[in-house]
Amino acid sequence: MLAGVELGGTKCICTLGTGPDDVRAQVEIPTTSPEETLAAIADVLDGWDFQALGIASFGPLDLDRTSAKFGSILSTPKPGWSGAHLTSLANGIPFAIDSDVNGAALAEGLWGAAQGLESWAYITIGTGVGVGSISAGQILRGAGHSEAGHQRVPKLAGDLFAGCCMYHGDCVEGLASGPAIAARAGKDGRDIAPDHDAWRHAAHAIAMLCHNLVLTTLPQRILIGGGVAIGQPQLLEMVRHYLCSSLADYGQTDGVEDLIVLPGLGERAGPCGSLALASRAANWH
Amino acid sequence: MLAGVELGGTKCICTLGTGPDDVRAQVEIPTTSPEETLAAIADVLDGWDFQALGIASFGPLDLDRTSAKFGSILSTPKPGWSGAHLTSLANGIPFAIDSDVNGAALAEGLWGAAQGLESWAYITIGTGVGVGSISAGQILRGAGHSEAGHQRVPKLAGDLFAGCCMYHGDCVEGLASGPAIAARAGKDGRDIAPDHDAWRHAAHAIAMLCHNLVLTTLPQRILIGGGVAIGQPQLLEMVRHYLCSSLADYGQTDGVEDLIVLPGLGERAGPCGSLALASRAANWH
Repeated sequence: MLAGVELGGTKCICTLGTGPDDVRAQVEIPTTSPEETLAAIADVLDGWDFQALGIASFGPLDLDRTSAKFGSILSTPKPGWSGAHLTSLANGIPFAIDSDVNGAALAEGLWGAAQGLESWAYITIGTGVGVGSISAGQILRGAGHSEAGHQRVPKLAGDLFAGCCMYHGDCVEGLASGPAIAARAGKDGRDIAPDHDAWRHAAHAIAMLCHNLVLTTLPQRILIGGGVAIGQPQLLEMVRHYLCSSLADYGQTDGVEDLIVLPGLGERAGPCGSLALASRAANWH
Repeated sequence: MLAGVELGGTKCICTLGTGPDDVRAQVEIPTTSPEETLAAIADVLDGWDFQALGIASFGPLDLDRTSAKFGSILSTPKPGWSGAHLTSLANGIPFAIDSDVNGAALAEGLWGAAQGLESWAYITIGTGVGVGSISAGQILRGAGHSEAGHQRVPKLAGDLFAGCCMYHGDCVEGLASGPAIAARAGKDGRDIAPDHDAWRHAAHAIAMLCHNLVLTTLPQRILIGGGVAIGQPQLLEMVRHYLCSSLADYGQTDGVEDLIVLPGLGERAGPCGSLALASRAANWH
């Protein structure tokens, strides 16, 4: 039996199970202060019997096992959470920790739309834009974990929107996240018509990100999920269109229909990501 | 003893030795038709005694060992070379083949400015812009090899230069390669003053590429070499300046002085790349 914790900006999801088709228990906890939130999560885990724990968290995270800050959240605008240590949740049990999107990417490889592949990317479009990358079956690591949602890409010709990323203005996240789309349209996402130009600009930014990933991390497939992508099915087709035209047959990929797809686990990719990390910690996969 | 062949667009360099400080022989062959060129290379190799061969070539290359086209050059604008098979050069001897820039990146890890690192990138700025990526000690692979020199990045505000990449127009290569800089300035590179705006635009494009690499392939260091970068020392400082301002302290890197450096092997990184690949094939490293 495995346990997973997905730590998100507004809520944390604790899951007990062995995979998406075998979830034995799931508990949601609102994300407040780190002390209160982590104590509530620890209480839930205390009541469960499991052999490995997966922690999939918002970041940026220190994942360097030789670092004194291993397993902690680095500088984040989220009040109180900079420096919060997450590994104490494991309480001596084997564990794995990674970014929420790397977890989701792993889950898609085990149970979703990336089964049988060796290299793939998972993009989530929600309150931010996150990218998880798997290369030759392993989570792509180096100096930190992927933050490719903050890539710099060209905008559509004549676009003067300044973007809304607090660090970079008009990086991909600043152009294509839910808040960016809402800011551009001047209204809440659910009130923006599917043919509104704001979607087109967001799709273009995501397509430019995909162009760069195809030529850089060399995914066999890119899964695009998160609330915004799943709620707006027209977005994926626009991404495919812009990507095709941008790549101009460059890059060793087959057709764009198979290259750009929705995640197989849909909205469950996130919470399942924590279980996927747990299964790595348990050496199941 | 190792042998290496670096196949370039205008010349091929055959090297016999064990590393940059122990080169026993080196022969240059002009790149003409594949038949003529490969026969001349084979003649050189025939005269040498070595235990493994490294082939570092311009691309794109098919590096999928399960493919019928393994070890061949894929679609290239270079007349006659599309489909040329390179692995016959090995003639039964253990060999490794990869892109010229991946070879150079490896060489920098063994003998140059990336010694002791786990993840790094090597950028060459010459007739094109090439990027080699090493992740956790291994060449980053997936659907093909890195073609990150063709990333799409934003231009400096107001820049109307259309770029000169025959595939993508104003991708990084179309903005920052030697021919791009010459086209923008309207004169040969050696006649462009060091403070000409053309360098600034090229440095900006390279800095945007570095921004995207830092957040995506997570290099601990990025080495920037090739004839253009080595010949224009002011370029590196401009890249550092634009990168610093673009990253805005995002990304888990130390200071930009140590992040962006010249290759330790300088112009020798290319030919040494073929020896580095040979040393992998011989299981020396």
